[in-house]
Amino acid sequence: MTMLPIPAFQPIGVIRSPYTEPAGVPIQSAVAGDSPGRAEIFEPYVDALGDLDGFERIWLIYAFHRCGPARLRVTPFRDTIERGLFSTRAPCRPNPIGLSPVRLLRVDGNVLELDGVDILDGTPLLDIKPYAPQFDAFPSSRAGWLDRGTDRNHADERFEK
Amino acid sequence: MTMLPIPAFQPIGVIRSPYTEPAGVPIQSAVAGDSPGRAEIFEPYVDALGDLDGFERIWLIYAFHRCGPARLRVTPFRDTIERGLFSTRAPCRPNPIGLSPVRLLRVDGNVLELDGVDILDGTPLLDIKPYAPQFDAFPSSRAGWLDRGTDRNHADERFEK
Repeated sequence: MTMLPIPAFQPIGVIRSPYTEPAGVPIQSAVAGDSPGRAEIFEPYVDALGDLDGFERIWLIYAFHRCGPARLRVTPFRDTIERGLFSTRAPCRPNPIGLSPVRLLRVDGNVLELDGVDILDGTPLLDIKPYAPQFDAFPSSRAGWLDRGTDRNHADERFEK
Repeated sequence: MTMLPIPAFQPIGVIRSPYTEPAGVPIQSAVAGDSPGRAEIFEPYVDALGDLDGFERIWLIYAFHRCGPARLRVTPFRDTIERGLFSTRAPCRPNPIGLSPVRLLRVDGNVLELDGVDILDGTPLLDIKPYAPQFDAFPSSRAGWLDRGTDRNHADERFEK
């Protein structure tokens, strides 16, 4: 089957955080603790932010702009042996797309004030979706090697360029 | 701030489902009921599937290849009035990226056998991530207009090209 190429995506905004280097970034929003940041949405897209303020969490979908080349097997932060890349959340993916369910504190014009930010400063934002427990929360879902993983909460530079 | 353009992403595989037209497709995996399908992963990426079989659910990230032009305000399937696009899961987004937490039944070589598929047949797959309740499940998260929405479970053609 022939598939059309995926069009080049354009940033809809930029993510701001205290993290200018990968080492020390929280590995996930859920384990980030207090980790404030914000998303600055570009002007053409501000009207699409309506009604977002009713949601406690939002999905940020973004480009891992500092990741190194894709690898098919990696040792993830919460394990000590190599795993298939698609069973991990490592950034060095064939399509380096990141996904974070961050807490939305406030919408102020084109700025989303956030907490639980696990994203590098300057990251290009591709999409925002509402977090809906009706659709997204499966609290008892079995999670393979991660269910036996370590409790590490912060990154190092292993996946950087 | 100047940002580099996002590189064009390449499909890592294709999603197969019984749904050849948008009308009647489940609006979300969580409300899809029995809805089998599969993901066929292209050969260069098969080694990255290792360890995925331990996970009960996986995130599929894909391109909405049949969506119409982006709109900033839409009437979502579960409401009767217009909402800001980013507070909805509608496909007609500035970057038409889809996100589904489907059930993973079996990994058979390059094929992932799935259930709870809410995706059109032939959809280009961009990424796979493990679903980890440790990171992804927030069952009591407040969900704005959706908490007061209808119980509609299937799509129509309103967002099609």
